[in-house]
Amino acid sequence: MRYCPKCGHQVEMAIPQGDNRTRAVCPNCAHIDYDNPRLITGTIPLYQGKILLCRRNIEPQFGFWTLPAGFMENQETTSEGALRETLEESGSVAKCQQAFSMISIPRINQVHLFYIAELEKDDFHPTEESSEVALFDLKDIPWEELAFSSVTKTLECFIEDHKKGQYGFHEDVILFNSVPD
Amino acid sequence: MRYCPKCGHQVEMAIPQGDNRTRAVCPNCAHIDYDNPRLITGTIPLYQGKILLCRRNIEPQFGFWTLPAGFMENQETTSEGALRETLEESGSVAKCQQAFSMISIPRINQVHLFYIAELEKDDFHPTEESSEVALFDLKDIPWEELAFSSVTKTLECFIEDHKKGQYGFHEDVILFNSVPD
Repeated sequence: MRYCPKCGHQVEMAIPQGDNRTRAVCPNCAHIDYDNPRLITGTIPLYQGKILLCRRNIEPQFGFWTLPAGFMENQETTSEGALRETLEESGSVAKCQQAFSMISIPRINQVHLFYIAELEKDDFHPTEESSEVALFDLKDIPWEELAFSSVTKTLECFIEDHKKGQYGFHEDVILFNSVPD
Repeated sequence: MRYCPKCGHQVEMAIPQGDNRTRAVCPNCAHIDYDNPRLITGTIPLYQGKILLCRRNIEPQFGFWTLPAGFMENQETTSEGALRETLEESGSVAKCQQAFSMISIPRINQVHLFYIAELEKDDFHPTEESSEVALFDLKDIPWEELAFSSVTKTLECFIEDHKKGQYGFHEDVILFNSVPD
């Protein structure tokens, strides 16, 4: 970040008055350009006890399986973002039942939030972002081909809770992984 | 947002290829400047059954009472952000017990997340951001002088759960209010 988005002047890295962190500050117009973590919202889409997964048709992790999820957008709620991503990536219309997992990944300044959601009907299809969309029995989750560690953690928690017959809210942190987040 | 933060060139509002939303796109260097919702993290700080509130020494809502909370920063987890804000606004060291409320406010592109937290000791003080910091019995919450509707909703949920003797995870949306968020 080298230029002021308000006036185009080159910014300086400085601690603004009353602050305690270095920010991109514009010496021309005094604009402070804050950079904050982003929310990724997604779902665990269920249909008759099976979980819908999407095979990624884009990088990162092209070809690996994921739960539908993506950056939350302005002007929407967390659950609206999760359902929009589900529709965009899998072509399916779902309904959120409960927030299920919230995973902070401070290394990349992200928070991943997944909802348990129910598909209204057995209707989904490949999309620009997903080369394949399919329902998996819980015993057939392709663990070795999952795209992101937040997806693995979320599915592990889901299966544990499923065995208990009660779904909670799970918080976790990912610091370092062998696979992408 | 009128200039590219990467190269300083004036941006254009356009829908990038493969996207479906208008973004600030740089015609010079092709940088896309995404703008996404921000997370506000805070706590319900408890000490011997009382709740710690801070009287705001800054705008907006100068002079009103709030739970300690603020923008989550890069390189931290949601609970680290909540505890940092608690320390900055009230001078108190707390420990998160559970995520308690998550409130989307799409009108201002924010998500407010509050944790139930326990103060380690009866040690807090006014700060730059808080002219007064005090413990309140649940029956003495200054409802008419609360700063933000997300704080009011969170405290209402907390008191309901307290009566039940069991604390859940609460999700809500604020669309329009008479008071600031």
